[in-house]
Amino acid sequence: MLSKNQRKQILQLSQKKQRFTNGLFVAEGEKVIRELMNSSWVFESLYTTYSTFHPVAEVIRTEEMNQLTHFKTPSPVLGVFKIPPKKEILNESITIVLDGISDPGNLGTLIRLCDWYGLSELICSKTTVDCFNPKVIQASMGSIVRVHCQYVSDLAQTLKDLDKPIFGATARGNSLYDAILPKRASFVFGSESHGISYNLTAHLDEELAIPHFKLGENRAESLNVASAGAIFLSEIFRPS
Amino acid sequence: MLSKNQRKQILQLSQKKQRFTNGLFVAEGEKVIRELMNSSWVFESLYTTYSTFHPVAEVIRTEEMNQLTHFKTPSPVLGVFKIPPKKEILNESITIVLDGISDPGNLGTLIRLCDWYGLSELICSKTTVDCFNPKVIQASMGSIVRVHCQYVSDLAQTLKDLDKPIFGATARGNSLYDAILPKRASFVFGSESHGISYNLTAHLDEELAIPHFKLGENRAESLNVASAGAIFLSEIFRPS
Repeated sequence: MLSKNQRKQILQLSQKKQRFTNGLFVAEGEKVIRELMNSSWVFESLYTTYSTFHPVAEVIRTEEMNQLTHFKTPSPVLGVFKIPPKKEILNESITIVLDGISDPGNLGTLIRLCDWYGLSELICSKTTVDCFNPKVIQASMGSIVRVHCQYVSDLAQTLKDLDKPIFGATARGNSLYDAILPKRASFVFGSESHGISYNLTAHLDEELAIPHFKLGENRAESLNVASAGAIFLSEIFRPS
Repeated sequence: MLSKNQRKQILQLSQKKQRFTNGLFVAEGEKVIRELMNSSWVFESLYTTYSTFHPVAEVIRTEEMNQLTHFKTPSPVLGVFKIPPKKEILNESITIVLDGISDPGNLGTLIRLCDWYGLSELICSKTTVDCFNPKVIQASMGSIVRVHCQYVSDLAQTLKDLDKPIFGATARGNSLYDAILPKRASFVFGSESHGISYNLTAHLDEELAIPHFKLGENRAESLNVASAGAIFLSEIFRPS
């Protein structure tokens, strides 16, 4: 049975501040937990509603799991893991950069996309949602263990230091499909509502857009940032 | 002030059965509501927490809105709209087909993507989440008014009747990037957990995959269906 104290500790990890104070985060879902357990990441505690999941897991009742979960439909497995140590910036040939992405599902999906296309690093502004948010962890489907999210306070300076061309995904840019994309480059994505921040826009070498395929006014105004990221990554890595 | 009866009526529209019995659905969010109000779709009632939103909107208190919303963070605007009449199948040159997509966010994102790439129709199995689910409506960001979701009971027969090549997005298929895609074709996407259903697989002319860009076992197993849809649509419509 779960103690009041255990429950309190897990629930407070829904707050970013508490995650960083304790150096811990919560993951839910079998697939995600298995990926985390198979990685070098360190688990602190593991809870499940069915006894066969893992020998070290503490078996709890469904009603107890319902009190712990961050989701409407709780998974039968929940784990508390240590936040891994920070890494140096790798500066891979291709760098994806997120400026103010607030939706956790979008960040998780973008982490998964970076993993698919073989990237180990994602650079995020401090205004981007925390990658240890339970919804980001879930949407990343375990890719979080392979894609290190670097949160930097000065995106413009960090990108200048990477010393490669900087492209921005914007609505008014040149067609992505017509661009000749260099082997080494950074690609910046802003939030759907605010776009790329003003002081970073000045540092872009080129703005690129996914062109509209429908004429007139009566059409989608924009794509969500995870869809745009998927299309950009596909264009960057596709054999020409 | 909202009557008990009004509240009850709105809340029960979270259930698919109730939506179809009443011919009504709920939409939340300013952007989505504006798109719906500007379309030919008919609204039944409109509620807002601020008086300047729209002359016909009933102003309610924030606590009342909190009781109506389907979201953790309620929007200041909620509308009840009539489900539009069914349409004949258009059979555009390119048809996107969803087989058993259960996540409402993914369906909404795919509707928005179809709209972006100029498609007016999306064919769905009856096992796909209902497009009038409030979370689908929100994720579609208004594109639902331009992309008609056709729910069909026999996907295989419907696709045969469309009389054009049928491609399936699968993990084991040939590389999407190497394929020569015809101008007229259907593209089927299955669920992440179950893939394309068995009886439909037999009718595929070719299976196509988004290739992995990372060698070895230590990588993302799959992409989410909305990401896969974005990449396929980009490949289908990009100028070669």
